[in-house]
Amino acid sequence: MTGDPDRTSLSRRAALGATLAGAAGATLARPALAAPASEAIEWRMVTSWPKNLPGPGMTAERLAKRIADLSGGRLTIKVYAAGELVPALEVFDAVTNGAAEMAHTASLFWQGKMPAAALFTAGPFGLTPLEHIAWINHGGGQAVWEKLYQRFGVRPLMAGNTGFQMGGWFRKEITSLDDLKGLKIRMPGLGGEVMRRLGATPVSLPPGEIFTALESGVIDGTEFLGPWSDAALGFYKVAKYYYAPGFHEPNGTGEALLSKKAFDALPADLQAVVEHAAAAENIFALTESEWHNGAALTRLRKEHGVELRYYPDTLLSAAATASEDVLDMVASHDAVSAEVVASFRKARATQATWSRVSQARFLAARDAAS
Amino acid sequence: MTGDPDRTSLSRRAALGATLAGAAGATLARPALAAPASEAIEWRMVTSWPKNLPGPGMTAERLAKRIADLSGGRLTIKVYAAGELVPALEVFDAVTNGAAEMAHTASLFWQGKMPAAALFTAGPFGLTPLEHIAWINHGGGQAVWEKLYQRFGVRPLMAGNTGFQMGGWFRKEITSLDDLKGLKIRMPGLGGEVMRRLGATPVSLPPGEIFTALESGVIDGTEFLGPWSDAALGFYKVAKYYYAPGFHEPNGTGEALLSKKAFDALPADLQAVVEHAAAAENIFALTESEWHNGAALTRLRKEHGVELRYYPDTLLSAAATASEDVLDMVASHDAVSAEVVASFRKARATQATWSRVSQARFLAARDAAS
Repeated sequence: MTGDPDRTSLSRRAALGATLAGAAGATLARPALAAPASEAIEWRMVTSWPKNLPGPGMTAERLAKRIADLSGGRLTIKVYAAGELVPALEVFDAVTNGAAEMAHTASLFWQGKMPAAALFTAGPFGLTPLEHIAWINHGGGQAVWEKLYQRFGVRPLMAGNTGFQMGGWFRKEITSLDDLKGLKIRMPGLGGEVMRRLGATPVSLPPGEIFTALESGVIDGTEFLGPWSDAALGFYKVAKYYYAPGFHEPNGTGEALLSKKAFDALPADLQAVVEHAAAAENIFALTESEWHNGAALTRLRKEHGVELRYYPDTLLSAAATASEDVLDMVASHDAVSAEVVASFRKARATQATWSRVSQARFLAARDAAS
Repeated sequence: MTGDPDRTSLSRRAALGATLAGAAGATLARPALAAPASEAIEWRMVTSWPKNLPGPGMTAERLAKRIADLSGGRLTIKVYAAGELVPALEVFDAVTNGAAEMAHTASLFWQGKMPAAALFTAGPFGLTPLEHIAWINHGGGQAVWEKLYQRFGVRPLMAGNTGFQMGGWFRKEITSLDDLKGLKIRMPGLGGEVMRRLGATPVSLPPGEIFTALESGVIDGTEFLGPWSDAALGFYKVAKYYYAPGFHEPNGTGEALLSKKAFDALPADLQAVVEHAAAAENIFALTESEWHNGAALTRLRKEHGVELRYYPDTLLSAAATASEDVLDMVASHDAVSAEVVASFRKARATQATWSRVSQARFLAARDAAS
């Protein structure tokens, strides 16, 4: 993660004249001191989520708690639900203009501002969760993400993940590409644009309004997240067919936005605290979704009569072609967007070589045996 | 991950008597203080790895650095390579008897002490990396792992991961189950026991001795890790066929062992520091392997003429059956082992439901399109 050695300890030791000699004694022959109380810093974290929304809302709360715990209370974070301090989709601006030091949100919300931002949540036919994290950590993803946001004085970090999405809920079966034509489907982000190119009409709706729209026939289908979260919104009551795979969003990274000014003013150890809290929550939240999705899918099928279906190959093939066109469109926006798309595509090519030999082959062998 | 500026500036400023009060402007109207100097603690971390071994050895070093950074130097970790303080496979005992406060190693090394320990590295036909982390974090895995180790006064944490393994290197093709019979294959852990049940002879060798054994014909095949690590050991020079999938170890969790006595004596914030450093390194290291494995596999094939092969279905099917027998054998060891195996199998069943709908279906669709 950091690369360089010994960032702080040496200078601090020198400054304090402390000696560490002798401190290494048998097991731990000294009193274990809590971090002494220095003047505490409090940050405001605005979020795009209702209070404690399963998944991202819980992640925002845990992220704040991790930072307080790790810092021994030297940095505490007051979490604001969507609308409490600023509306859900104004949290980026709030960090930019100093109304908050931090936000928890998702990058696809900034698609209007910067089309390439959506790729840091997911790209259609793009990266799986593990591939996405590999891209950000090791494949240059973090650098292009920061480059995209830097003119706003905002720095992004991965913080939470809702994992693979399902393809969507429909009231009637989709047996061919033709069945999609004319349907009104709630799907934000680049996936919505793919659906438009396949002949459907993408509709944008906040989570709280989807159920009613689906029930009343205002929309014919919807996607949200995976079975765990989707079950909570009750779509199964009004749509029987649940489609996979979620080609439009094979990942769901949660985004922590930091005011660069506030972050840079922190001492090095508190900067490390913020980064580590985000990194730990990122994998904790992702595996929480992964853990619950299987059981939730089983319950949906067994208790609520949901029919699991797979998109037909011809539809997937057309969607894959449309997805590349959408990536080209994003890349054409400006030079930084082109850089983001190139980095994303390179990561996918690099990772796909391994995923098809490791993940795909192993899962096939395990399934054949079960 | 950090990509950030100016890591050392704070201590420099502090040393110069500078205040940051004005630097933070409106959003941070107080001085940002570094962690005040309490008495520093130094721990010894013994490891099972040569100094800076790509993969686990680098993880051990980064883990120590993270803890120092996060704690602002209040907890520092001196890392000992294998053999420096104790031999590679005596690190568990070193933590138990107080010779070190911490170790970095892999749980499969304790298979002789506790057969179920191997499952916290990987189980044959078991859990993929993401499924494994989900099991530990959310499926009760951490609790049974701690239960297994508690009589030794040692607490384990996930810390690093080498990801999916390849199935192994062979000098001749394996086209049927019969081709395996009589072969001497370097394979430790429960996978070795599976190979024995398939008619091969498992051989245990430390990494540094594998190449010579394979070259001289002492062994007919070997596994180690994935393409990134395997390439470094040069097996391609003496064995042309590289098999997938690595059914015997579909995960590779690195294990941080903590002396419970030393850990419990830490203040709460330093306990959180140790746990978060391990969690962040866990996903960082896993994605490092994931990132490099694809390119390494391509290089092995294009530059070194390695032939990628897949185990025949009949062999995989027999291996899957043998793997269940091996799990039964582990479970029969004692009550805690039975509990570990039951938890592992339940996690697999829970996760497989989702992985086959999400991972497997998405990868198939993406591959079909490429």
